[in-house]
This record gives sequence, structure tokens and C-alpha cells, in this order.
Amino acid sequence: MITKIMNSPVGQMISTWRMSEEGLRLGNQILQENDNLGEAIVRAVKCVEDDPAYVSVGYGGLPNREGQVELDAAYMDGDTLGTGAVISVKNLKNPIEAAYRLSKKNRSCILAGDGAMKYASYEGLAYQNMLTESSRKRYEEELKVSKQEEIRAYEGHDTVCVIGRSREGSMACGVSTSGLYMKEPGRVGDSPLIGSGFYADSEAGAAAATGMGEDIMKGCLSFSIVEKMRNGMNVQEACEKALREHWRRLERRGYPNNGMSVIAMDTQGNTGAATTLEEFPFVVAGENGCRLYVASMDQETGEHFLFVPDKEWIKNSKSD
Amino acid sequence: MITKIMNSPVGQMISTWRMSEEGLRLGNQILQENDNLGEAIVRAVKCVEDDPAYVSVGYGGLPNREGQVELDAAYMDGDTLGTGAVISVKNLKNPIEAAYRLSKKNRSCILAGDGAMKYASYEGLAYQNMLTESSRKRYEEELKVSKQEEIRAYEGHDTVCVIGRSREGSMACGVSTSGLYMKEPGRVGDSPLIGSGFYADSEAGAAAATGMGEDIMKGCLSFSIVEKMRNGMNVQEACEKALREHWRRLERRGYPNNGMSVIAMDTQGNTGAATTLEEFPFVVAGENGCRLYVASMDQETGEHFLFVPDKEWIKNSKSD
Repeated sequence: MITKIMNSPVGQMISTWRMSEEGLRLGNQILQENDNLGEAIVRAVKCVEDDPAYVSVGYGGLPNREGQVELDAAYMDGDTLGTGAVISVKNLKNPIEAAYRLSKKNRSCILAGDGAMKYASYEGLAYQNMLTESSRKRYEEELKVSKQEEIRAYEGHDTVCVIGRSREGSMACGVSTSGLYMKEPGRVGDSPLIGSGFYADSEAGAAAATGMGEDIMKGCLSFSIVEKMRNGMNVQEACEKALREHWRRLERRGYPNNGMSVIAMDTQGNTGAATTLEEFPFVVAGENGCRLYVASMDQETGEHFLFVPDKEWIKNSKSD
Repeated sequence: MITKIMNSPVGQMISTWRMSEEGLRLGNQILQENDNLGEAIVRAVKCVEDDPAYVSVGYGGLPNREGQVELDAAYMDGDTLGTGAVISVKNLKNPIEAAYRLSKKNRSCILAGDGAMKYASYEGLAYQNMLTESSRKRYEEELKVSKQEEIRAYEGHDTVCVIGRSREGSMACGVSTSGLYMKEPGRVGDSPLIGSGFYADSEAGAAAATGMGEDIMKGCLSFSIVEKMRNGMNVQEACEKALREHWRRLERRGYPNNGMSVIAMDTQGNTGAATTLEEFPFVVAGENGCRLYVASMDQETGEHFLFVPDKEWIKNSKSD
């Protein structure tokens, strides 16, 4: 039996980017009403996957170099450490649903490519053409201006990550992304990689990351945050310290700041976030509903700030 | 600039399982002669990939449920943290070669399925039918005795992992596997997952894992070992402690001991190994050539022993 902290009788959730606000609201309703953590997280992620307005996740996601929307998703159950992920799946309506089901298996719980698509078909999950008219047009424009060999990867690479904690202290997380725009076919970022894009252990805490996947994975950023919490560090300090240590590690090797952001929750439901960006919006939900926050790193000093954005900020911000 | 330990003027290598002995001898020759760490590791892994006698790696690997040999490989450069991996590739003669080349890229360095195979074609890497007559026969026998739905995954799941350190203190590692016999198509184990199957940082050390991938990944075992070394722990203690902590974590959740083994090297070239098995052979190489060792865990007390096997042991052991 694992030991869970039960002294916080309220379900809590946290998610990345402003695009997750509506989904987190819906997921949080489920969590507050029936304490079903898996359902709450899947509901929250699905809402972002289904919305064509968000071009880095699910339906309407921007395509790879060959014009195909290739999706990755993962789910981790912090009670069992059960982990499910699908890597490089095409035309699957809700990759998070496949990842969630796979997390209940003991074997073959991470599936890539054709194998992942066969599994989803066998499970009766829905397929649909994930390329919207608007994403197709954007792809064709891009092809016109750049030669095939020189295609510039669009630097928008925002993954929806949702972490939750039930009233009984169970923790879990789910992530979903269509990865880098104009990416190489088959390219895998940090999102479906356990420890890099996500990690959850009901005995220690949970964390998830968004940003340039190739940079995040080099430091197993999510696992690194959870380990700091396991060793007694405060959740916000764990986020900032893990990110700073890893960023320094990359800086010493001459990597530029391509943007990495993290969210985390400790076993009592306290939340934290950190970023190497000037603005990283995230959403926190609990018994009193949802609230949007912004994490910001001073690009000179490296110092972190968290604030509640006002209407003016929300109107002007370009961060989804 | 990163800080490397230069006070050990000899190249060192360590690799998993007895099957890696010949490869490590060849790789070590390269390392001792010209100090080319990447070439040394790739040579060592290739030797195992090319040998049809080893049914869990490369040519002659046992197939998935559909009769196809699906391969995973990864390479990590501890100087740059550059990481390359191919996931679920078919009929690629030397997956480690593709992973090595990908580790030199900053983007799209982990590729899955069709995308990985396109990349390898584009790079001019060799393809061949990886299913030997002997592996095909074994597959057909298995099909006869078990219904499609009930196919028992063969529990042999040995990954070749090679870690090395150059005279100048650069560290790196490479891994290659065909995964579980009769696995679900597309199944991804720990091997190509950074932090789980492998991790290398010339500032802290390197580690790699072999065994039931679904169990190993739940604890990001390789990264976990390297972090303990980074915090000053002795390499052997780091291996034992990380493995024991993770095994306990799985035990508390009711998982059986499916077998996990690890190897590691610190920044000075000292090596360590640990296992949850009664016998885990590994090979260490340096200026005086190669030597086979065995790590053993007392199944009652959990205590670890390392010993040099005698001829009798080598004759009788079933561990490859």
C-alpha cells in the first residue's frame, strides 16, 4: 500500500496555457462533483484537443512537413504509476483517450505509429481528419515561401498538460500535443516521454512540461521536479530550482533559450509553476472554480514572478 | 563550457550481458587506440545487433505478435546532452547507427515508425530482412500453441547497453533492443526513452538499464542513478540505492519482480551495476582489456554481490 496525504479534502487541478481554461473548468466540475480524477483530466484535455482554434493540440493542429497532423499524448496514474502514451498517431480524434486506456495496462502501454493506431481502432476510438481547412491553408502558404529542405519549424509548440489531485490524495496527469509545426515526420518531443513531459506519483507529487521538447527531455524535467518534492522541497521552489539547474546545464553547452515552462502539484494540492519565458499563463482550479495566473521570468536576472493577470493583460497577451 | 574530470587518463567502457563481450572488446580497442568514444560505442553495439545468435537485439531478434522484428535504439552524448533515438523501426540493419547520427541534431532527434525509417533511408543506412529463419520458426511454433489473443510474451528482454568514457572525460552511452518477444506492434519499452533506458552527462556520470521496460520507466531509473552521482554518491551505491528505492516503490503497488538491471559509470571512470535478478552478467573494459562480472541480488535479503565468474559458472549459466 502506498501512503497518500489525505488532509486536503478538496480536489485540485492545474493546467498549462490559457487555451486550457475552458477544459479545466469542465474537468474541475467533474472532480468537485464526483471526485473521478481520470475522467476530470481526460475531459479537460479533450476540450483542448477538440477545439480547432488551438493549433498545437488535437483537431486543427498544425501539420508536419508532409502535411499530416501527427499527435502525441500521455497519461500517468500516480497511484499505480501506470503510464500510457501514444506516439506519432494520425487522425485519432482524442489521443488522450487512448493514452488513458493504455495507462491501465501493465504491458505494451506506450505504443508508437501504426501499432498505436491499430490499438485505437481495436478499442473503437474515433478517427477523423485532423487537418482543418485553416491549418491546411497555413501549411500551403508555408510551402510556397520555403523550399522543402529549408522549411522553418514554427516556434509555437504549446502542449496542453493537466495535473490533478482527488480528495483522497490520488494524483495523475495528462498531456497532449501535435508537436512542432512543420516537424520532421515521426518527430517525438518530450510530451509522450515519461519523466520529461510528465510524471506523477501520489507519494511525491506531479509535474508536467511544455516548450521545446528536445531541450526539456535532456534534463528529464518533470521527474526532476517530483524528486525535489519527494526530498521535501516546496512545490514552487522545486519548479524554479529544477528549471534553473537544467537551463544552466544547457547554457553551459551553448544552447539558446528556446522556452521551457513547467507546472507542478505537491501531495497536499499546493501548486507551482516556472518558465524561461517572459509570460507563461497557467490555470489553477479547486472548490472555488478556475483562476488564470501568469508565471514570468525576468530575462536579465532569472528571477521568477507569479501574478494574476488583469483584463488589460488578457486583452493584449499573445500567449495562448 | 562544461567541467570534465580529466584525472583518469584511460578510456573505460561497461556493457550489459555476456552477449556484449565480443562487441565491447572491439569497441574498447577503438577507444584505447584513438579515443573516439562515439565510434567505440557504436562498434560495440553493432557487433551485438549483427549477431543472429542474440534474439533480443538487431538481426535475428524475436518478432512482435505480427511476425515483424521491431527495433528501438538510442544514443546520448554526455558532452552536448545530444540525444538520438529511433523507435519501432523495421528492417533497419543497425538502429544504433541511426540513433548516433540523430544525436548530433538539435531538432527532430527522436523519430518513431515510418518517419524514422524515412530518415534512415535518406541517410543511406542499410536495410535488410531482420527476421532469421530460426526466429521465424520460433514465431510459428508460438502461434501454433497460443491463440492470437492469448499470446504469452516471452520474458527474455535483454537490451544491449554500452557506456563509455574517453581519456578526456567525455561520456556517452548507446542502447539497442528488439523489445519483448511477441510484443504488441508499436510497443515501446524503456530503451529509447531518455532518463529511463539511458542517460549520460559528462558532468555527472552515465547509466543504462535493461529488463522489463514498463517497470524501469516508471522510475526513470537511469536518470535517477546519474542524479545520485551528481549529488556525490559513489557509483555502486547510486546503482543499488536507485534500484532498491524504485523496486520498493513498485512493491508497495503490488508489482512482481520482473527483473531490472542497471550499469553505470562515474565521471572518473569507476563502474557500478545492480540487479533484482539472481544473476546479471556485465562486462567492463579498459586499458587491460575486457572482463566479465556478475551482479547478483540475494532474493531474500535484497543484498548485492558482485563477482568474477569462473569457468564453471560460465559453462552453466543461462544468462546471455
